[in-house]
Amino acid sequence: MATLGLVEYADAPPEVRAVYDDIMATRKTDWINNFWKALAHDPATLRRTWESIKQIMAPGALDPLTKEMIYLAVSATNQCGYCIASHTAAARKAGMSDAMFAELMAVVGMANETNRLVSGYQVEIDERFRV
Amino acid sequence: MATLGLVEYADAPPEVRAVYDDIMATRKTDWINNFWKALAHDPATLRRTWESIKQIMAPGALDPLTKEMIYLAVSATNQCGYCIASHTAAARKAGMSDAMFAELMAVVGMANETNRLVSGYQVEIDERFRV
Amino acid sequence: MATLGLVEYADAPPEVRAVYDDIMATRKTDWINNFWKALAHDPATLRRTWESIKQIMAPGALDPLTKEMIYLAVSATNQCGYCIASHTAAARKAGMSDAMFAELMAVVGMANETNRLVSGYQVEIDERFRV
Amino acid sequence: MATLGLVEYADAPPEVRAVYDDIMATRKTDWINNFWKALAHDPATLRRTWESIKQIMAPGALDPLTKEMIYLAVSATNQCGYCIASHTAAARKAGMSDAMFAELMAVVGMANETNRLVSGYQVEIDERFRV
Amino acid sequence: MATLGLVEYADAPPEVRAVYDDIMATRKTDWINNFWKALAHDPATLRRTWESIKQIMAPGALDPLTKEMIYLAVSATNQCGYCIASHTAAARKAGMSDAMFAELMAVVGMANETNRLVSGYQVEIDERFRV
Amino acid sequence: MATLGLVEYADAPPEVRAVYDDIMATRKTDWINNFWKALAHDPATLRRTWESIKQIMAPGALDPLTKEMIYLAVSATNQCGYCIASHTAAARKAGMSDAMFAELMAVVGMANETNRLVSGYQVEIDERFRV
Repeated sequence: MATLGLVEYADAPPEVRAVYDDIMATRKTDWINNFWKALAHDPATLRRTWESIKQIMAPGALDPLTKEMIYLAVSATNQCGYCIASHTAAARKAGMSDAMFAELMAVVGMANETNRLVSGYQVEIDERFRV
Repeated sequence: MATLGLVEYADAPPEVRAVYDDIMATRKTDWINNFWKALAHDPATLRRTWESIKQIMAPGALDPLTKEMIYLAVSATNQCGYCIASHTAAARKAGMSDAMFAELMAVVGMANETNRLVSGYQVEIDERFRV
Repeated sequence: MATLGLVEYADAPPEVRAVYDDIMATRKTDWINNFWKALAHDPATLRRTWESIKQIMAPGALDPLTKEMIYLAVSATNQCGYCIASHTAAARKAGMSDAMFAELMAVVGMANETNRLVSGYQVEIDERFRV
Repeated sequence: MATLGLVEYADAPPEVRAVYDDIMATRKTDWINNFWKALAHDPATLRRTWESIKQIMAPGALDPLTKEMIYLAVSATNQCGYCIASHTAAARKAGMSDAMFAELMAVVGMANETNRLVSGYQVEIDERFRV
Repeated sequence: MATLGLVEYADAPPEVRAVYDDIMATRKTDWINNFWKALAHDPATLRRTWESIKQIMAPGALDPLTKEMIYLAVSATNQCGYCIASHTAAARKAGMSDAMFAELMAVVGMANETNRLVSGYQVEIDERFRV
Repeated sequence: MATLGLVEYADAPPEVRAVYDDIMATRKTDWINNFWKALAHDPATLRRTWESIKQIMAPGALDPLTKEMIYLAVSATNQCGYCIASHTAAARKAGMSDAMFAELMAVVGMANETNRLVSGYQVEIDERFRV
């Protein structure tokens, strides 16, 4: 259960607790999921990863639901079981309905198909698409 | 330039022209990009792929811009040069601004990073995430 | 043009020439493609890789054409441009027709699509499929 | 057990039952595997995916066994556990022996190795391989 | 539990036992892990794979610990659960500390992130980097 | 040449110049490569990515050369042309010899092969490897 084990709040050093507290406050929850407890063995990576995610997933030009669905699309493409489970939960919390999930997966499947058709057929980039 | 070459409209058999015509009408353009011209050597795959994309990318629970950005997120994850170029163009046409592109890429990059941290640390799925 | 450059026959040391000679004799050709010329900077890897491929691609329970098409299917899935180009040529030489290529790509595309649908929907293995 | 759960035949709406019936008739079996039961929450994707697979996997320029082995080769490359299990079963049903499976895996392994050697050494495509 | 089952030492034919014996002698252990027991159904692949690994992982210009960490970096990138577990064990045995593991994973995560940023932004190779 | 173009130093706003200056000072060079010039359209991502890389690639439990080789191993596995070119240059600058490069690639190739053999054969994790 995680290479280095999981660091529970009660056993965490102050710099880890500070990140845990910020995760719970930002997400308005009283719970820390295993990913952070596994990373906590490396407090520098824990902090850097959390600060990056907090910055990236905040509302901006894209809304949080769209961002969570993009995160899920990447995780499904990479077939990361944990990531699919956790980001499906996060996307639902942000408002993803069953119908939206189904359409998201249809796009992900199709993109993975045509990505390989393009490569297999050795299709060259059209002049109009060149930047 | 494409394994089997590109089928231009002038040289295309009727069943291929019918698909080309539908692509141009649906996309409100007078132009066919290389992907379809390469697939046209296999009219059954050309028709099936176009009908699938037409169905999947139509407005539904998700709007066309969100779908194009998801397509682009998958293509960037798979590092498919042609697909990134063509779907960046399609997403821009659907309304993606430079700021939206930049946030999309930030999410794609982060998801690809944490997908591997999760795997490398062998993180087990939390009970709360199990379906 | 290759990280360490290409080793031409005329400049190759005896242990590299011996591999080149065996490649040309086995493939009944008078030509060495760039992959081997790039690997030749590491004669141990050159020999090991060639001996492995020679053993694996020889006729056995599967015929050479089927093996070349499987090689191409993997290369298209991985989107390796060089490998797609070289194994398309090899598969054609072994008898792959345009129609066979088109069906091969259709299967590769579909498999890449359903692989992600399975992951995204978190489908559990059926009891009947368990080994 | 699947993000949206599994739709059993007894609980399925008519358009889903129609697809299930066609799957069982086409495959000459009285059983539906979990993949279809998971997709059934999205009847449009269920139908499209089944119709595509039915068309693609039918005998053509390639026989069904070769197609199943290509499907398995892609699934092993993508490391999709469910897909490997289900397509190993399908390939066996279509006639794949233990010896054929072993040779298939040897080719898949080797292709994945050389795909990366090619990229890592930055090998340029030979003029003779250019289309 | 492995497609073709696991071949235990007691049931193994002489050519398989010879490889098992060499694995145990080389690794100074009295134990064979499941990977080899699964491959043993194909003695030619078992021998070839073992001989290749033995040659590649031996001390050379790179020390065995560095090689094991590279193996682990690839396995984490590919998200191969078995490979991550077995090569984490091997790297630890070769001297990888918890701190080294954490830094290794940080690099793996970052590389996976920037690989996609590069592709998504369609960054062209700098003249100075061209070989 | 990069989706949003490249931001040259002369045209860069102060917050971008500050990052460019730090990159050049840290790397003891007077040159900025295209990756950073492309990211510069999104100063927040530019800064975050640079700060992360600077922290991760600094000497720690692993030396800089080992870290660059791990970065290159991941990039070769993902087949990212730009990343392979730039990190081969960085690894050489950090001391990677031709022999080290060749051994690195041999390990990368082998790991990519066995990762798929493990998946294809559906090998279960040994009890001894479970954490």
